[in-house]
Amino acid sequence: MQGAVLYGPREVRFEQQEVPKINKATDAIISLSATCICGSDLWPYRGIQPIAGPTPMGHEYCGIVEEVGREVRNIKPGQFVVGSFATSDNTCVICRDGYQSSCVQREWMSGAQAPFLRVPFADGTLVPTKDLPPKELIPSLLATSDVLGTGWFAADAANVKPGNTIVVVGDGAVGLLSVLSAKQMGAERIIAMSRHASRQKLAREFGATDIVTERGDEGVARIEEMTKGIGADSVLECVGTQESMMQAIQCTRPGGYVSYVGVPHGVTLDGEHLFFSHVHLHGGPAPVRRYLPELIKLVLNGEINPGKVFDLVLPLNEVAEGYRAMDERRAIKTLLRP
Amino acid sequence: MQGAVLYGPREVRFEQQEVPKINKATDAIISLSATCICGSDLWPYRGIQPIAGPTPMGHEYCGIVEEVGREVRNIKPGQFVVGSFATSDNTCVICRDGYQSSCVQREWMSGAQAPFLRVPFADGTLVPTKDLPPKELIPSLLATSDVLGTGWFAADAANVKPGNTIVVVGDGAVGLLSVLSAKQMGAERIIAMSRHASRQKLAREFGATDIVTERGDEGVARIEEMTKGIGADSVLECVGTQESMMQAIQCTRPGGYVSYVGVPHGVTLDGEHLFFSHVHLHGGPAPVRRYLPELIKLVLNGEINPGKVFDLVLPLNEVAEGYRAMDERRAIKTLLRP
Repeated sequence: MQGAVLYGPREVRFEQQEVPKINKATDAIISLSATCICGSDLWPYRGIQPIAGPTPMGHEYCGIVEEVGREVRNIKPGQFVVGSFATSDNTCVICRDGYQSSCVQREWMSGAQAPFLRVPFADGTLVPTKDLPPKELIPSLLATSDVLGTGWFAADAANVKPGNTIVVVGDGAVGLLSVLSAKQMGAERIIAMSRHASRQKLAREFGATDIVTERGDEGVARIEEMTKGIGADSVLECVGTQESMMQAIQCTRPGGYVSYVGVPHGVTLDGEHLFFSHVHLHGGPAPVRRYLPELIKLVLNGEINPGKVFDLVLPLNEVAEGYRAMDERRAIKTLLRP
Repeated sequence: MQGAVLYGPREVRFEQQEVPKINKATDAIISLSATCICGSDLWPYRGIQPIAGPTPMGHEYCGIVEEVGREVRNIKPGQFVVGSFATSDNTCVICRDGYQSSCVQREWMSGAQAPFLRVPFADGTLVPTKDLPPKELIPSLLATSDVLGTGWFAADAANVKPGNTIVVVGDGAVGLLSVLSAKQMGAERIIAMSRHASRQKLAREFGATDIVTERGDEGVARIEEMTKGIGADSVLECVGTQESMMQAIQCTRPGGYVSYVGVPHGVTLDGEHLFFSHVHLHGGPAPVRRYLPELIKLVLNGEINPGKVFDLVLPLNEVAEGYRAMDERRAIKTLLRP
């Protein structure tokens, strides 16, 4: 089979790879119905996050189970499944507490930008649907695997409640699906910080009530003005830079909540500043597995359509163009068809 | 009257001051039944936190109302009252949300190490008791004003729940009363990190089930061992240094809670490290006013005895010795009798 491998900054090759096999008795092999490129893939693509050597890319996936190891009990060949970018046994004390992305047996998935994928801890990582889903729902089901699950965590970790005023910092795919998630959780006022017309439009479709185009101190001042000098109840930080993190903390009311769901790059927080901001801070790798059953259900019931974030669809062999389009911000998110 | 004024590192003078008067119609003047020295007073005392000039010290207080401004409605002369180190109108949206120490009209109290004190926003800051309390309860009532209120916030902000395993980092008066607070909230296992025999003893009296004497990486390893490699559910950071903050975060299980209640001095948090720790982080100046009614009730009912943290009682005019004793760790906390 052929899959995407990153060799260095902006060098994605679509090249011959071994078809994955069952390595451990708890593995499953799936054939991918669709895969995609993550905003987080752009960090190594841009050379900001170094790689040790040629790296098979991709960690968002859904598809049909081809084969399972002999200890796999709940996942069966022929099922349609969605999984998370972090494997989980879903039985340890951390998983039972809902933090499957910090499972004691966690492995980070990679190599999903390919036709076939090996998934460790299949029983704890994958969620099957009852029937094979209709084709038109595949993009939205794929979205639950990471980008929606992460946006959902952003809203949950920031304690979004009915009636709240919330701010989303970042108009990437995760930020946009954080808007959808906050809407779904009943937020009354959803302020999306975005300067790109196409993204503003999608933010509004997903439920944003206001758009703020200013950034940094000006953005903070604008939010303060919009919230009568108090700040927002919850702010969802969906970028991972120093500027976005500061913006998020400063937009939040004392006693309010800040979540952060993208790996911070070069971010340091001053303890005293954070102390007097009086905010709650929570984030980390999204425990997507916790949310998957609910998110899959919302998609299958037609209540949400997160697949709209895919504004570019390419055959898998054009994966390099998918990266370029996202890097140059020509595309919000690229779906790849194996 | 004579009160304590800090002139520079380790230079506390007990000197003549004007008796405070009503400045604003919302003020009250109280005569202090007792006052004390706070762990946070040691930062400027040690020269770590610079002062702009001679600074009247003290922000923990309880006493009898002498006089009130003409707009004060609920507080009356002759009442016994306790107040917080942060004034609050107790009506703004932030106060109503329970974050009175970030009230839009907040002022930081000072000058309480004196016989009389002016309290701004008396109606929103002070909590009166129904009757004059018995003398022997004065130390415990004084403790509610800051040190217990802050320890209580540490436990509340760290989401202490019945059955939890919690760790308290810091064996100062706040740390010790965090132990008491966690016990009161039903924590099952309370691990106090302390290397001082007298403080360990008090920690046990307040409800600690285990004592860990190791610090830094060794302390973290010990907690990991005691929690089957998972970490504690909640960790209460009651020091405010880089080492104590790192120790707290590293002792916490993924998805667990870290609170921090002492002003951080020279603390910086690495965003990526915090992200993968997966903890909830919350802290800031304790909203003592939120807890005062409940804490006063617990003291008056004899359910808690936080006054035990005062292991040195001096007449107010010996305030300088009170500072020295705490600086040299000869005393946990000094109560001063005006």
